Amino acid sequence: MNKIVLAQIDTIAGDIENNALKIKECIEKAKYQKADLIIFPELVLMGYPFGDIIIRHKSIIERQLEALNDITESTKNITAVIGYAEPVKENGKKPFYNSAAIIQNGKIISNARKILLPNYSEFNDYRYFESSKELPVTFELNGEKFGVIICEDSFNHKSFFKNECIYDIDPIEEVMKQKPDTIINCSCSPSRCAKEYVKNSLFSYIAKEYSVNYIYVNKAGYADNLSFEGASRIYDKTGKLILRAKSFEEDYVVTSDLSGKINELPKGSDKKINLDNFELNYANDLDRTYKSIVFAIKQYFSKNGFSKAVLGLSGGLDSSVCAVLLADALGSSNVWGISMPSRITSNESKNDAKILAENLKLNFLEIPLSDLIDPMKTMLNNSFEKINTEKYEKTTTIENLQARTRATILWSISNEYKNMLPIATSDKSEAYIGYATVNGDMSGGFAPIADVTKTKLFALADFLNKNRKIKNVIPQSVLEKPPGAELKINPKTGKPVYAEEDNMPYEFLDEIIWLVENKNYGKNELLKHNFVYEQKNNINFELKTEWINKFYWKSKCAVYKWHILPPSVITDIHSINSIEYHQPVISFIYKVNK
Amino acid sequence: MNKIVLAQIDTIAGDIENNALKIKECIEKAKYQKADLIIFPELVLMGYPFGDIIIRHKSIIERQLEALNDITESTKNITAVIGYAEPVKENGKKPFYNSAAIIQNGKIISNARKILLPNYSEFNDYRYFESSKELPVTFELNGEKFGVIICEDSFNHKSFFKNECIYDIDPIEEVMKQKPDTIINCSCSPSRCAKEYVKNSLFSYIAKEYSVNYIYVNKAGYADNLSFEGASRIYDKTGKLILRAKSFEEDYVVTSDLSGKINELPKGSDKKINLDNFELNYANDLDRTYKSIVFAIKQYFSKNGFSKAVLGLSGGLDSSVCAVLLADALGSSNVWGISMPSRITSNESKNDAKILAENLKLNFLEIPLSDLIDPMKTMLNNSFEKINTEKYEKTTTIENLQARTRATILWSISNEYKNMLPIATSDKSEAYIGYATVNGDMSGGFAPIADVTKTKLFALADFLNKNRKIKNVIPQSVLEKPPGAELKINPKTGKPVYAEEDNMPYEFLDEIIWLVENKNYGKNELLKHNFVYEQKNNINFELKTEWINKFYWKSKCAVYKWHILPPSVITDIHSINSIEYHQPVISFIYKVNK
Repeated sequence: MNKIVLAQIDTIAGDIENNALKIKECIEKAKYQKADLIIFPELVLMGYPFGDIIIRHKSIIERQLEALNDITESTKNITAVIGYAEPVKENGKKPFYNSAAIIQNGKIISNARKILLPNYSEFNDYRYFESSKELPVTFELNGEKFGVIICEDSFNHKSFFKNECIYDIDPIEEVMKQKPDTIINCSCSPSRCAKEYVKNSLFSYIAKEYSVNYIYVNKAGYADNLSFEGASRIYDKTGKLILRAKSFEEDYVVTSDLSGKINELPKGSDKKINLDNFELNYANDLDRTYKSIVFAIKQYFSKNGFSKAVLGLSGGLDSSVCAVLLADALGSSNVWGISMPSRITSNESKNDAKILAENLKLNFLEIPLSDLIDPMKTMLNNSFEKINTEKYEKTTTIENLQARTRATILWSISNEYKNMLPIATSDKSEAYIGYATVNGDMSGGFAPIADVTKTKLFALADFLNKNRKIKNVIPQSVLEKPPGAELKINPKTGKPVYAEEDNMPYEFLDEIIWLVENKNYGKNELLKHNFVYEQKNNINFELKTEWINKFYWKSKCAVYKWHILPPSVITDIHSINSIEYHQPVISFIYKVNK
Repeated sequence: MNKIVLAQIDTIAGDIENNALKIKECIEKAKYQKADLIIFPELVLMGYPFGDIIIRHKSIIERQLEALNDITESTKNITAVIGYAEPVKENGKKPFYNSAAIIQNGKIISNARKILLPNYSEFNDYRYFESSKELPVTFELNGEKFGVIICEDSFNHKSFFKNECIYDIDPIEEVMKQKPDTIINCSCSPSRCAKEYVKNSLFSYIAKEYSVNYIYVNKAGYADNLSFEGASRIYDKTGKLILRAKSFEEDYVVTSDLSGKINELPKGSDKKINLDNFELNYANDLDRTYKSIVFAIKQYFSKNGFSKAVLGLSGGLDSSVCAVLLADALGSSNVWGISMPSRITSNESKNDAKILAENLKLNFLEIPLSDLIDPMKTMLNNSFEKINTEKYEKTTTIENLQARTRATILWSISNEYKNMLPIATSDKSEAYIGYATVNGDMSGGFAPIADVTKTKLFALADFLNKNRKIKNVIPQSVLEKPPGAELKINPKTGKPVYAEEDNMPYEFLDEIIWLVENKNYGKNELLKHNFVYEQKNNINFELKTEWINKFYWKSKCAVYKWHILPPSVITDIHSINSIEYHQPVISFIYKVNK
């Protein structure tokens, strides 16, 4: 049997020279280990995702081809499968193939070209690539026959996906006509909720159905709002998993008989996630969510030359969870937690912020807001006297002023100190209904939890408290008190207004989001739907209708905010991250009034 | 001959009920006028651009089909051509065809389905649509034969575009095989610099080559960063333009013999723009740029329920031009110009801001910054004493603080008053090198000049001074002084630092931008290139190299800012607007150091 290396490496879009160096080092190591074959992820030499830089900056392509030439010449006594953007020569075609060069004895013996070009969700293959009209490529090595396919080519398997197939061709069927012993799948497949179960079932199914070995090599890295988890693997001819590389970490795995260490996945992520109904039970996705975000923070910071973070600690859920994620990604000593209480901030919140910082051993600072807010208020009131046009009856001016002043402090600190980024702490439920302030809590260099809904965040906070080495870093009161930005006082209660008083219960909101994203429900279907929240609480149809209308009204006004969200990481099944979901600011879903 | 209506209307994505109402009103009017045929733009019933709402919100499609059914039933005694998203029934296909329903006597007699699906630049047709594999549709009306094609189907004409064709099929060739008397082209084609000349030449060429009448019906409206200019038109069989609807305005044109009024285009926009070399002469594109931005402002505001704008007036070029554009779009009385001088602001700038506001009859207010900045400075300095990590040698903290405080004031004012939006005044040259402050001058509800470079802005300001009804509203000194944000003092001169001291001459920078966007030049090509600026000024190769490196370094750091730019309007030949150009924050073009 051939000795094979799965080179689960991470490369950066356009950073050709470093990418090539990394690839060559792997090849040299593999040669030294007398490996017969080394396999890299999809588009490894170009670095993925690259967006339009491969179109607008043509020098990147020139440098990529030079680098490939250089790698090819030095690749002797080993076979290498290297993903790259292969220029198409004919007119009337897209500029590139999404190819894997198969290199032997200093020559490219063939190019395995991707057939299926996904152009949905976060994928834009069709924008750049021409679909291969040829059969998938095979090659022989010491009497073994390998068939090479690229990522999506495996995801239209007719007997597995049945009527969910979105392409005519099934490249698996095509490659199997040539009877390979082993299928190689070079991939760049981002981690998402509910994806691992499908992936594992599919690969195992194909291996078993055709009695073929199945090798999957995936990128492990973060870029452009996507966490690629790696977890490269091999299935034997019975469909059994016999090797798996690490998750959310680069890896280099050698095997002489295809089998090897089966590294653990994030806890529960191989389990089937219920896609039929909304459930408040997120248990099987919490460890994966945690790991994908921590990985994203690490990589976003280091790849952009940052090592420190500064965030506001309100004593609330969002900032508390963000603080834990940042501490775990960057180290506590690299995180500055700033408590910025206003006159409205409760003592409990102030206290919770402080305790969290102590528990996490963050750098902690308290900066009271009132000395900054007061002169601004005076100035604004003076100015408002001179502006003669219709005012809102209820304004959000002072609420927003607090959030914006906090963000100004965080940005000022990050401007003063080397390699420090301010953090946007707003979550997915808030983003949906625009319940975060522009230039306030939605502003930052990175937004760690922008794709995590509030109810899932509660579950995640509880998970972190129970499963981190140091237990219960997030004060229990943070998990128990109702969420609220503490930006205004409810005149009836004399206490800060809770978010759910302004909006609707988060359990209800999060189920709307889930149904819209996963079942594409419209307003009528939502009205008819029996919500989990309804099963536990008595609400009349009028209130339900009001909440659903409020969702459409508020999310219509929020679309502008979706367009200016900071870089983040997609982690849910679906998202409103603009990398995945496009909605023009000027657009209507339903006519609903405030 | 048939009596024909060109219904150059604007519809909003997903706003089916209103779109349908508008379409029906046009049909009723046309019937009343005894017209034989009425033609609407591409996708008029759905409203374009719609992004992913047609995928995620399937109720939109249901409502669209209901509305089409309703329109169809009431369309008797006239033929109507109505663009819509037609569901595809088979599996393994995209969900829709981009179709135009041809309706006669209460029935859809056929669907003209788009063949060529652009997926480059701002276009994403392939994401949603299946390409028609059938011949373009024709229909007969009173002995005349019409062939119907959709937008891009006209833009792959082989004898016109020759080796620039990007598709195999030429639908014009295909439709002409059926020998129609008249081609109908239903379009949604956004206005861009240099586009009109190509469009006009192409349509005229086709009409003449095949001796066919050519009717082009285009949307007039703004959405999702795109200004669609309308300018629907008819060419006769000799290729002569015989009718043209209005530009940047909805229109409804009736013709009995295909000819009619030839409305004027923006001045110069039909002239050929030099795409071979960068020129500082923007003359032929200034009126179009002006009109496309004013149209965009009008539509962005009204479609989102806003009618008033508030902007900072610095006495500089960017804010002055923005003020004129806003005044012309919204009316002077709906624009609030706020001068917010700091200690660094020169008296000249303060004065220029005031004079501009007077000339334009804006609402004007002066709010000095120092009372607001000082307590913030004190607080920050106190905090900085407590933060023990490495500082930058030169920081931008105080510069940015000024810009952010100004934006906070503008957002606060907009939060207080009904229907008012704050304006982001930064320009394209600044955006490229990140010379605008996050949460500062690059923040706002709309960014009117984000796709206009600085040298073009100077030309535009001069054009506005000379061509508006009221001349010279922008003080001459604004046009003459070197641009600068006046956020810091140059210790050598004792004066505020000019932007060109921080960066490079704008003439040089704008030529780099032009070469990168239009010729896809890389670093080596830029180094070899003979810049217009070089022809007039003596610079050595070292300085030139420094500027080019600075461009790559600064634009690398600016990519994050491109991702959070407010909604704007694309108006140049190419842009960095994320609707058109995708670049991941984590990506490399060249390794260059600060």
